[in-house]
Amino acid sequence: MPDDVAMKRSVRTEMPFSGEKLDRLMEEAGLDVLLVTSKHNVQYLLGGHRAQFFSFMDALGISRYLPVLVYPKGAPEKAAYIGHHLERYQIEVGSFWVPEMRAASSGSVDAMELAIEELRKLGLAGGRIGVERSFLPMDAAEALRAGLPQARIGEALVVLERLRAIKGPEELARLREASERIIASMLAVIARHGPGSTKREIAEDLKREEASRGLDFEYCLITAGSSLNRAPSEQKWEMGEPLSLDSGGNYQGYIGDLARMAVLGEPDGELEELLGKVEDVQQKVFRMIEPGRPGGELFAAASRALASLPEHNHMHFMAHGMGIISHEAPRLPTGGLMSYPAKDAERPLEPGMVLSVETTLSHPRRGFIKLEDTVAVTAVGREILGEGARGWNRGGTAAHP
Amino acid sequence: MPDDVAMKRSVRTEMPFSGEKLDRLMEEAGLDVLLVTSKHNVQYLLGGHRAQFFSFMDALGISRYLPVLVYPKGAPEKAAYIGHHLERYQIEVGSFWVPEMRAASSGSVDAMELAIEELRKLGLAGGRIGVERSFLPMDAAEALRAGLPQARIGEALVVLERLRAIKGPEELARLREASERIIASMLAVIARHGPGSTKREIAEDLKREEASRGLDFEYCLITAGSSLNRAPSEQKWEMGEPLSLDSGGNYQGYIGDLARMAVLGEPDGELEELLGKVEDVQQKVFRMIEPGRPGGELFAAASRALASLPEHNHMHFMAHGMGIISHEAPRLPTGGLMSYPAKDAERPLEPGMVLSVETTLSHPRRGFIKLEDTVAVTAVGREILGEGARGWNRGGTAAHP
Repeated sequence: MPDDVAMKRSVRTEMPFSGEKLDRLMEEAGLDVLLVTSKHNVQYLLGGHRAQFFSFMDALGISRYLPVLVYPKGAPEKAAYIGHHLERYQIEVGSFWVPEMRAASSGSVDAMELAIEELRKLGLAGGRIGVERSFLPMDAAEALRAGLPQARIGEALVVLERLRAIKGPEELARLREASERIIASMLAVIARHGPGSTKREIAEDLKREEASRGLDFEYCLITAGSSLNRAPSEQKWEMGEPLSLDSGGNYQGYIGDLARMAVLGEPDGELEELLGKVEDVQQKVFRMIEPGRPGGELFAAASRALASLPEHNHMHFMAHGMGIISHEAPRLPTGGLMSYPAKDAERPLEPGMVLSVETTLSHPRRGFIKLEDTVAVTAVGREILGEGARGWNRGGTAAHP
Repeated sequence: MPDDVAMKRSVRTEMPFSGEKLDRLMEEAGLDVLLVTSKHNVQYLLGGHRAQFFSFMDALGISRYLPVLVYPKGAPEKAAYIGHHLERYQIEVGSFWVPEMRAASSGSVDAMELAIEELRKLGLAGGRIGVERSFLPMDAAEALRAGLPQARIGEALVVLERLRAIKGPEELARLREASERIIASMLAVIARHGPGSTKREIAEDLKREEASRGLDFEYCLITAGSSLNRAPSEQKWEMGEPLSLDSGGNYQGYIGDLARMAVLGEPDGELEELLGKVEDVQQKVFRMIEPGRPGGELFAAASRALASLPEHNHMHFMAHGMGIISHEAPRLPTGGLMSYPAKDAERPLEPGMVLSVETTLSHPRRGFIKLEDTVAVTAVGREILGEGARGWNRGGTAAHP
């Protein structure tokens, strides 16, 4: 295979995001051009493109995979993408809005050198360049500084995160699908495990089940009995014990992330009551999710609900935006995050925002009890994605695998 | 969950690598301490540990996952691991040789700041620090330079790669298992697809099949008919056509990477002959794999074999080390790699090295014909991992899914 395959292309598809919004965010951040180098943001900006050879791993040879999307403010017709030479097949059969799609790099430094060429062609060698500082490796960053000593380098993270905060109908459909498939996977796995299955066996089975349903499995946090340890292990699930599953799985680049409970046998009254309290907090928060309401009010409401419970010292509430990554904008915890400029907690929720809402009870005697849900803000209120299976799901009702 | 959980541990398990060899490699490279930050090298050095929450993705919130293993030369009893706070559950139930396992970071910069504290405790604030320059993000690299302005920063890649080049029995067992499961997955998928299945359907089915067999699917390059495009697409596999599958899947951190051929119906004489030529090159090279032989001789032998074939202009041979990542040491192409110090092509092969051997025929009329195999160097010769299914495997012999 040749080392450098450049493909000039006409603009063939619509941009999957608002160029106007991106340009405005770049203007506010004082950036002339973006160098996007994370797989998740490249995927977002290129309408779902993800180099399949590097979807799971980045390392290759003596370097690594580094995609670079060059986006000059206000000039999408001059955007360029530098992919790895193994991406050539996907580029050949795909459709892209970026006029210059190149499958040309073999590592991080040569990818950056090709991007520098693009910046020079754009007359931006002394420009204000937004990079993803957590997703630009040191060697490529040094190549950038050495190649363009006049450039000023800024942070692109907030620009890209805010661009992604409002999801469109296709994104919502993927998130709904991801959530529903996670729930269905959990129910299938819970049904076929009975007394004596280990947490590792159950987690491995969930991984396979999610894959069989077309998800890229991400993780499974799992507890059994009174233990609060959430790692897969040789601990067995025994009769009468609760089991918590908290799993992330990715559907076409969008994350489903939900937590549900199960029990072997019938739940006793205390278990019913405890899960009922967790569910009550979730429902109180759900009802507040609507466009126009400041996101921080969700935390205030949850705090009030938790304060009234005798278990409040063992309970924890969290709500955060999610979508392509598992914690993204809007950022709702009212304390705020160091050096994060946006005050999302004070801003109104908007239709298309998607929130993960989670209430956790780490009970010292009965174990870990948690519900986590994904909620989309709609034009008039909310839609709960993957709403089912909120109570005590019974284990072992199907044949053991 | 608390933001900082530090766990002091006694040394509980054996180091899964030779500390003596690592120390020698560090001495040769002029390094006092390593800061290992890639998931694959952390996994290797910690005996298989991989943070499950971050196995598929790195992004979280406004930063990213960054594990840091601090290894001071000659003093494994002073090594420390800085993990993300979500790793605490895995650390609690696991066994590790590193005395200080911390589940303490939430992003890349605070992880590096914790590592800097360790370096100061070690008295290495002005030391020679080996980092993985392709796997250290810019923000953490800047924190390192700012925090330890006296330190000299060098490259750890070659040290770590050479440490990994000889595989032990457990590693070979995993590579064997990975290879055999890839072959079994391919055969199952080939059998249940007939005329009209698209390349995308077949690739998706292989992904699910590999997952159902306990592999982390990595990629599937696929061609059908006379096309040389290797991306999954809507192209249909039709009667009489060849199909090539080249797939990577990961078993417990070790990669299987093999390529096999299939056909719908019976292969004609020309197809038989062409695959025979590819197989002949593979076998000629296999026979040369033995301890003591300089790896570059494989290329010389393959070149001679190819030169005698009328299709040589369309053929390509490659051999490279593999294991945790798909191209690693030994590095055999005789041209050598820029800035790579080791001359592996001139060095003798050693027992425990594992090679990927691939012969490709990009036939202008009959399409893409390839075999790729994984071969371990043994004490007396070679072992081919996942050797089966080398001929024209017949499609559609089982019921369509």
